[in-house]
Amino acid sequence: MRHVPIEGVVLTDAELDHSLGVVLLREGKRVPIYATAAVRSILEYDSRILPVTRAFADVPFTELPLDAAVPLLHADRSASGLTVEALAVPAGPPQFALAAPEGHTVGLIVRETDTGRTCAFVPGCGGLTPQLRDRLAEADVLLFDGTFWSDNEPVALGISTRTARQMDHVPIEGNGGSLEQLARLPCRHRVYTHVNNTNPVLLESSPERAAVVRAGLIVGDDGLYITV
Amino acid sequence: MRHVPIEGVVLTDAELDHSLGVVLLREGKRVPIYATAAVRSILEYDSRILPVTRAFADVPFTELPLDAAVPLLHADRSASGLTVEALAVPAGPPQFALAAPEGHTVGLIVRETDTGRTCAFVPGCGGLTPQLRDRLAEADVLLFDGTFWSDNEPVALGISTRTARQMDHVPIEGNGGSLEQLARLPCRHRVYTHVNNTNPVLLESSPERAAVVRAGLIVGDDGLYITV
Repeated sequence: MRHVPIEGVVLTDAELDHSLGVVLLREGKRVPIYATAAVRSILEYDSRILPVTRAFADVPFTELPLDAAVPLLHADRSASGLTVEALAVPAGPPQFALAAPEGHTVGLIVRETDTGRTCAFVPGCGGLTPQLRDRLAEADVLLFDGTFWSDNEPVALGISTRTARQMDHVPIEGNGGSLEQLARLPCRHRVYTHVNNTNPVLLESSPERAAVVRAGLIVGDDGLYITV
Repeated sequence: MRHVPIEGVVLTDAELDHSLGVVLLREGKRVPIYATAAVRSILEYDSRILPVTRAFADVPFTELPLDAAVPLLHADRSASGLTVEALAVPAGPPQFALAAPEGHTVGLIVRETDTGRTCAFVPGCGGLTPQLRDRLAEADVLLFDGTFWSDNEPVALGISTRTARQMDHVPIEGNGGSLEQLARLPCRHRVYTHVNNTNPVLLESSPERAAVVRAGLIVGDDGLYITV
């Protein structure tokens, strides 16, 4: 009756818009969560999302080490055939967090064990280091932080006093922007995700969208389905 | 750009499904909140909804004493012509709360100062005392806890091990149920609100809905608009 059709939740960080759903899912009997020790600590002590949720529902927790693949299980603990690996990415902790433990923001590499087929998911990333680019190059499907088009976008529009980079999001455009770097990766599918509603790539007829498509990337949308 | 078209939020308790929206509204520049000291304390220390929200947005807070009318202000602090009064109602605190300070669950009486016209809003109520019934009788419009039809409903359907009364909701039907008590009140409009999705009054052709209508009450729905 209050079943939630989700086998588990892997968190990349403890930002409210990425983790508050755990509270909203509390009516489900159990929602297994995977996250790093740093993310767990912020959910436990800073936003208190875990203790508040536990008052209503069992929350089985699997800790993700950094840089090591961990099996993803179905909710009944049977094997799923997938693993997930967390990679620390350059970023700051959530604004409400009282500390910034290592691993508070990660990208994920999800791999099908049998075939080796791989999806990288990096919804928030403050900088693309050569090491990180090398890891993302392994992916058949790359879903990457497309929050802002330009560094100055949030300031120019008056939604923030911080630039995109100051908010730990590499902008898409320009020198050192994500587009020129992702365009060189061999991944079969490269998709911008986590796109803010101020980003002109959301407009299908915009020159910014055309630039993304010309570089061989796409802009993700709800319901996007990719076969690898 | 991130304006929230809400002048203020009056909380009746700190239950997650009644207060988590404050976090979701954090993108709004400021969302004035009115609540009792007890509700504030639970939001501050137990669910940490207030400190987490304050990291993003100003949260002007007005404390509501029990049994005293307080002016409701527009977001710009100008007069609205309305007052709100909080009445403690029989109930337990939220499951995640570490204490049960007095006033953790209230009903509200909203009054237009010029005309005296009054709306009572009591979405969660574990018992209708004679004193509470007398206060509700003042209302032109009464919105009352219609969570469950019968006391055994949540147990019989397997959604809880606690009955309606044990969950602090007077059931609608039966001896001591809310229907027989509200049917005797002189309020011009009496409306069941906070109706759970297991409650048969939601079915327009059900005998339970017919019993509610026969007693002179209605079942509220989204977008309900009442002129007094």
